[in-house]
Amino acid sequence: MLKLYCAPNTISVAVVAALNEGVHWEQKRIDFKSGEQTKPDYLALNPKGRVPVLVTPEGPLTETGAILEYLGDTALPQLVPADPLQKARMREVMYYLATTMHVNHAHKMRGYRWADQQSSYDDMTAKVPETMTASCAYLEPQIVGPYLFGPEPTLADFYLYAISCWLEGDGVKTSDFPNLTAWKATMETRASVQKTLADGFVG
Amino acid sequence: MLKLYCAPNTISVAVVAALNEGVHWEQKRIDFKSGEQTKPDYLALNPKGRVPVLVTPEGPLTETGAILEYLGDTALPQLVPADPLQKARMREVMYYLATTMHVNHAHKMRGYRWADQQSSYDDMTAKVPETMTASCAYLEPQIVGPYLFGPEPTLADFYLYAISCWLEGDGVKTSDFPNLTAWKATMETRASVQKTLADGFVG
Repeated sequence: MLKLYCAPNTISVAVVAALNEGVHWEQKRIDFKSGEQTKPDYLALNPKGRVPVLVTPEGPLTETGAILEYLGDTALPQLVPADPLQKARMREVMYYLATTMHVNHAHKMRGYRWADQQSSYDDMTAKVPETMTASCAYLEPQIVGPYLFGPEPTLADFYLYAISCWLEGDGVKTSDFPNLTAWKATMETRASVQKTLADGFVG
Repeated sequence: MLKLYCAPNTISVAVVAALNEGVHWEQKRIDFKSGEQTKPDYLALNPKGRVPVLVTPEGPLTETGAILEYLGDTALPQLVPADPLQKARMREVMYYLATTMHVNHAHKMRGYRWADQQSSYDDMTAKVPETMTASCAYLEPQIVGPYLFGPEPTLADFYLYAISCWLEGDGVKTSDFPNLTAWKATMETRASVQKTLADGFVG
């Protein structure tokens, strides 16, 4: 059975919700409060000290985008468009979320990855509402509705769902983004997302 | 014909080299020195103000990882492993390069994306040798040789090639990473990479 190392309120929520779309899996929650992700046992599994890690029959796999694509290739083909350009559009959003929007968010609490001074961390934290709002503004006109690309969700919807749960805490005025707000409400009608919420992965 | 908006010494070099593997394409170089990527004409094409942009028959496509995957799906299937787990391993490296190693590098010159004070920019710049060295140390034991995953290159090799050209400038002592050094030399035996270099995309 697939096993996912994960933690509430992290990007691993994207994989949790996707797995809940119909994969038989088990979870191992990592306790970020005690820094479990930085302990030797966990670093032996993932030297990057992050979640998620998906343990496949052929070994552990890291990186949210790669894990989601693996699920799309194996268990959840319904979340990947068949057309090459539509698939590319899905990946364009996934890479944007991975490289820009998640990275913007990470500057709130993880400034030590890129700087050494407390004054820099404070400066980075202060800018997060601006950068996350800019990311929402970039995405807003692209949301076709009811899902990102139309009538059915793709892997990108699950990636965005995890990030969308951070917006209020990051100081984004979400009411300024009606497409995004309606999209999130649609995601929360899905049994997979409802189970993710009921299992305490958000909040 | 596919058209690529690109610039020397940027991540777009990954796409240039991949296209040179056998795609009929034309280039439009963007002049970063004059800030052409931030001018209205370019922002109309890509509101993110970045390169690369690949203009496909169905419109412009952004994000290096998504563009490489599109080429793998259409013109360059030989650069994508058929096995789902091997494909996932390729994507694991691609997402690592996109979300961590490229982001580490970006803190040298693009600190304004995440902070507002000059002191923060200086702090970020100073840390780049450390973070880029750590990224090399993470990748080093994963390089099978002669290419990343064995006898043939994948999309991930081209992604890494662009980033590997930044290492000396980022203060990495590349001689500490013999696998990476040998891998880069192998990449530079390929006609596609030689053409990329001859066309002035690096240096």
